[in-house]
Amino acid sequence: MRVMGVDPGLTRCGLSIVEGGIGRKVTAIAVDVVRTPPDMDLAQRLLQVSDAAELWLDTHKPGAVAIERVFAQHNVRTAMGTAQAGGVIALAAARRGIPVAFHTPSEVKAAVTGNGTADKAQVTAMVTRILGLQVAPKPADAADALALAICHCWRAPLIERMAKAEAQAAEAQRKYAERLAEQRKAVKR
Amino acid sequence: MRVMGVDPGLTRCGLSIVEGGIGRKVTAIAVDVVRTPPDMDLAQRLLQVSDAAELWLDTHKPGAVAIERVFAQHNVRTAMGTAQAGGVIALAAARRGIPVAFHTPSEVKAAVTGNGTADKAQVTAMVTRILGLQVAPKPADAADALALAICHCWRAPLIERMAKAEAQAAEAQRKYAERLAEQRKAVKR
Repeated sequence: MRVMGVDPGLTRCGLSIVEGGIGRKVTAIAVDVVRTPPDMDLAQRLLQVSDAAELWLDTHKPGAVAIERVFAQHNVRTAMGTAQAGGVIALAAARRGIPVAFHTPSEVKAAVTGNGTADKAQVTAMVTRILGLQVAPKPADAADALALAICHCWRAPLIERMAKAEAQAAEAQRKYAERLAEQRKAVKR
Repeated sequence: MRVMGVDPGLTRCGLSIVEGGIGRKVTAIAVDVVRTPPDMDLAQRLLQVSDAAELWLDTHKPGAVAIERVFAQHNVRTAMGTAQAGGVIALAAARRGIPVAFHTPSEVKAAVTGNGTADKAQVTAMVTRILGLQVAPKPADAADALALAICHCWRAPLIERMAKAEAQAAEAQRKYAERLAEQRKAVKR
């Protein structure tokens, strides 16, 4: 599975492509950071981020896009810009029929370091080791984008299995309720 | 000036088209609310909102798009979805070369009611009166989208004049600093 990882942002937006193999084997295909000037018009910044993401999607043709789920940060304005950058990339993927998943920062950290509260240095170190890179990816946004893609490669099969199990449970529940209703009807007659 | 007003949201997104005339004269051309189901995939919801906005842009060809600037709300997840919906609409406008402006809720309320802390009922009542509508626009998102477009029609010339004045002031400042530097150089010689 080829996954595009996105650490969304307007000032710096990390993009990565990771190929998942058998078991936990993952390989980095590409990584870069898109930047837009903070004094630029918001709509124009979103356009630049969107154009870059569309170029990546059309060049690398990933099977899934994994984006960091944004929560309120200290700076509300930054959080909104980050959410909007993630939104336009999700839109670009949806236009191409590519499924989009959102992972929280702690899910990503837990996936690559085993610790949901790991710091940036630890995440970068583990990403470097997992992908067998010669040098650590820089800046942190690049490492985060790779971590997101790795997280998705490892979590996606699990999430899929869970969704299947939940669907089966719901189906069983439905059938049981149906049978119960029929038996009740039979008793009333 | 024809303005598209947007009260962004995923569950309900208000869209309006208002034509600004001479002075404070404004006319409503269209208003509607786009809805997406809350249990739908986020990327798919953004796609539906974006498709609706693109259809409006291409049908009504507004000269400007005015979107409500989102701040942190009680529910952080809702605020993020709202920001993302506004983001994809800003992107659609930017792709068509249409300028996008963001107005805060209090700017909008102050513009249409004269009171930045007016409630929804007051905003709806004033929008109905200003546009000379037979019935009040419903739901609140529709009224808000109209209020945003009206706000932009009235604020845009003001903002433009202010930007021009600021640019002139900056230019005068620059020339003064230049002259000062030259005089200092002359004194040193």
